[in-house]
Amino acid sequence: MRLRHKPWADDYIAESTHIVTPKPFEQKGEWNKVFDESQPLALEIGTGKGQFIAGMAEKNPSVNFIGMERAKSVIVSAIQKVDEAGVKNARLIHENAKDLREMFGSNEVDTIYLNFSDPWPKTRHEKRRLTFHTFLEQYKDVLKPDGEVILKTDNQHLFEYSLVSFSQYGMKLEEVVLDLHALDDETNVMTEYEEKFSNKGQRIYRCIAKFQ
Amino acid sequence: MRLRHKPWADDYIAESTHIVTPKPFEQKGEWNKVFDESQPLALEIGTGKGQFIAGMAEKNPSVNFIGMERAKSVIVSAIQKVDEAGVKNARLIHENAKDLREMFGSNEVDTIYLNFSDPWPKTRHEKRRLTFHTFLEQYKDVLKPDGEVILKTDNQHLFEYSLVSFSQYGMKLEEVVLDLHALDDETNVMTEYEEKFSNKGQRIYRCIAKFQ
Repeated sequence: MRLRHKPWADDYIAESTHIVTPKPFEQKGEWNKVFDESQPLALEIGTGKGQFIAGMAEKNPSVNFIGMERAKSVIVSAIQKVDEAGVKNARLIHENAKDLREMFGSNEVDTIYLNFSDPWPKTRHEKRRLTFHTFLEQYKDVLKPDGEVILKTDNQHLFEYSLVSFSQYGMKLEEVVLDLHALDDETNVMTEYEEKFSNKGQRIYRCIAKFQ
Repeated sequence: MRLRHKPWADDYIAESTHIVTPKPFEQKGEWNKVFDESQPLALEIGTGKGQFIAGMAEKNPSVNFIGMERAKSVIVSAIQKVDEAGVKNARLIHENAKDLREMFGSNEVDTIYLNFSDPWPKTRHEKRRLTFHTFLEQYKDVLKPDGEVILKTDNQHLFEYSLVSFSQYGMKLEEVVLDLHALDDETNVMTEYEEKFSNKGQRIYRCIAKFQ
């Protein structure tokens, strides 16, 4: 995604405390207090422009959603999307967390969404892929024992890599879909990227994995 | 595959004892005695017309190959292929084993190949799929602890199903390839079916799974 310079972004983010939680590290273990309702917590890592998180929050009012996005010029769009959706069950985090455990307590999260994550195709960048084992270790800690990691991507090699990585870490695959949009799954909420590439005829892959 | 009536098949099979092992149940635990060399044992379930087993035996002289095929009208082609290849390290079994453990001892097999197995798409036929858990149980018993199941198929749903089935059974995925022929893997030996469908632009999937 091309990152346009948005000089007003800092102010806009700072003013949007009803959506962007200002001190996320202080909420560790107590995210439910941030929301109106105490209910299951879903986390999207790399929220981008926010179509997924806003759409999911709208469709699933009995789940609280948190979207993490480190890019300033992108999170402003996500703020707008969540604002326009008028949902009470979505919050954003504008942080580049080195470790999710700095922001989430053990067993605090029910679902982690990885949507169209950067594939980091070069082997020397393997460590940066969000399904590398150091990330899985974090997910395992913050997820409830029965929690799910749900991965969507159009990148064949990231998908192949992730299936093997999940499996080698001891995770169980609950579902593998090799052509998501052929399924006509009404529960699927598309990201901006997914909509664009799917319209071009690109296959979308999805899998659901658990730690037990 | 259309099964032509071949009245000469019975005689041909009976005469080909140098390739089709006559009493396979009696070889249980002693398959290495059937071959000239005592070396790792690979088993293909559903050998069809034999291009894979003949080609693999030729390319891998330090492995003994056994191909199982229950259809009389198809195994005759496999006999011809193995004969023409002039290999000493390939044998066929003309049986419809209910349970592999009737023919193979514990830890006797190094690799099991499932090539373009019948996908049995209807849910009520799930039990017949060669990656249903009752089959995995057999594979686990006859395979060495470090042995591999190598699955190739062009059937998307069988592949999705098999990845989940392997994983739920506690197997680990060693490799997942979602477009085998894009890889240009020189070790890959194509089956007749694979050649035909791949030429039509159909994707070929492959995965390698282990029990530990």
